[in-house]
Amino acid sequence: MEILFLGTGAAVPSRNRSTSCIAVRSGSDIVLMACGEGSQRPIMLYPYSFMKIRAILITHMHGDHILGLPGLIQTMSLEGRKSPLCVYGPPGFRESLDMLMRATGGSTVFDLCVREVVPGDSFSAGNMKVGVFQANHGVPAVGYSVSEPDRPGKLDRDKAVSLGIRDGPDMARLKNGETVNGVRPEQVVGPPVRGTRVVYTGDTASVPSVAEASRGADVLIHEATYSDEDRELASEHFHSTAREAAETALRSGAGTLILTHISNRYDSSRDAVLKEAALVFPDVFLADDFDLFEITKNGTVLKNPQERETASADRTESE
Amino acid sequence: MEILFLGTGAAVPSRNRSTSCIAVRSGSDIVLMACGEGSQRPIMLYPYSFMKIRAILITHMHGDHILGLPGLIQTMSLEGRKSPLCVYGPPGFRESLDMLMRATGGSTVFDLCVREVVPGDSFSAGNMKVGVFQANHGVPAVGYSVSEPDRPGKLDRDKAVSLGIRDGPDMARLKNGETVNGVRPEQVVGPPVRGTRVVYTGDTASVPSVAEASRGADVLIHEATYSDEDRELASEHFHSTAREAAETALRSGAGTLILTHISNRYDSSRDAVLKEAALVFPDVFLADDFDLFEITKNGTVLKNPQERETASADRTESE
Repeated sequence: MEILFLGTGAAVPSRNRSTSCIAVRSGSDIVLMACGEGSQRPIMLYPYSFMKIRAILITHMHGDHILGLPGLIQTMSLEGRKSPLCVYGPPGFRESLDMLMRATGGSTVFDLCVREVVPGDSFSAGNMKVGVFQANHGVPAVGYSVSEPDRPGKLDRDKAVSLGIRDGPDMARLKNGETVNGVRPEQVVGPPVRGTRVVYTGDTASVPSVAEASRGADVLIHEATYSDEDRELASEHFHSTAREAAETALRSGAGTLILTHISNRYDSSRDAVLKEAALVFPDVFLADDFDLFEITKNGTVLKNPQERETASADRTESE
Repeated sequence: MEILFLGTGAAVPSRNRSTSCIAVRSGSDIVLMACGEGSQRPIMLYPYSFMKIRAILITHMHGDHILGLPGLIQTMSLEGRKSPLCVYGPPGFRESLDMLMRATGGSTVFDLCVREVVPGDSFSAGNMKVGVFQANHGVPAVGYSVSEPDRPGKLDRDKAVSLGIRDGPDMARLKNGETVNGVRPEQVVGPPVRGTRVVYTGDTASVPSVAEASRGADVLIHEATYSDEDRELASEHFHSTAREAAETALRSGAGTLILTHISNRYDSSRDAVLKEAALVFPDVFLADDFDLFEITKNGTVLKNPQERETASADRTESE
């Protein structure tokens, strides 16, 4: 699974940070989380096809999270998208999107399905499964967890052979859950391996439902609009501080924390915001625009792995 | 007067071109013409203060011309703008903007005045005067002309002295149109010098009203969505080709033509589009994102004068 940060700023974008947009890719399927103004152009800079976006998940109806929707949807339409697109958001989302589309005379040549969701809902998006949980931002607000499907457990081949199964199609059928020649899968296949899971808070104050939803997640993407020095502002505006995000990650047992939605007031002090969180939860990154994170099958998170490869190749060449 | 192109693409932005946005600066006053998605971030890259934007002129209500409005207005509000902002558009604009603002829960801490305009209207924006003319884009559509005030004519000092006027305050009063010691201004001051005038078409098919409105303008900024090879597409979608834009410039006697709103289909053949127009009207530029044009007082148009200065300084240094 891959996470590409297309916009990591807060309400007011800055020279460094565009407004919120995060793409999660699993195989050839993409789910977009938030779609702030100007999201479609950065997507064009990556080999991420607009047409492979299976769903767009909106956490709440503030401009910095939804103003990229009408333009992106129009572009998909002008480029001839045929497959349906589902767009999800909390109660009230249908009316907001409808206003955005009508204001610009927008219509689509493909089926646009708009769904309002509440905490506890779940649905599929391409090969991914999406769950909805409660956030707290002073307006209707939810967060999303996005998971790859569980993978079949490890097959004990020697034991299967000893029970009379031959290598080849029979072995594969057994691994995939079928009983073969009287041998049941649970006799030779270990427990399923949980699929990679990413949780995204959208904008939220620190609330227990976020820790609950991200229990055991591989990655928790948590908003960190403010630093702890400005925690009163955070509380007043229903946002979190970097420290609060780290405390939630610690409580939830998430593997890795990625901070995003950073106020432009920290443009020159981003590292201090990162360090504030790292003191509480060391496995933390602070996302900048265009950062790409790869989550390996064992849950390790690599930041910009391609750059690392290039850097390492450069080193080798110059040695 | 200065023209800064912040977005020069058509409906679908590309890696090279953002959607429409053009800033015109006169002194410290700025007028924004069109405000496509993502306009506010490029403005941040320039020493153009959001707070000095006196008016925003919308030519028609398509997404690539208005989707940047709610974000820009919200940013002005969050940054504490106090002075009122007037936003102009053709009939129906008020409802469109209202939907965009309501969809995102937007409100402002400053006075936002929204005015619907029709061809023939005129109004002030800071120290500039704006006129409205008819365009033809299959939906309510207008174009705008933006002028600096006329400047006082040249004073014949020697003649004034011979009529008994002394250098100093009296001379200045005379130049500014006052009668001094019985000497009338028209005796010693030449005819007023027409202020610099820039005309912007918005999106339009080729129609006589554009040539009419840009008669004698210093600069005609004309959309050129298509090349003449695709003139049937242009006609079908109420757009112009580069050749048609050049023909209009020729008919109107405008000083300089600047092409904008270039379809992404020409990303790799922009120069061919420029040449097509140049064959008809040689004083033509094709605007790319972030091009800045300076119009000197005698109507000469300089493209990216700062870069030229830097380049010339570099040359001098290396010589």
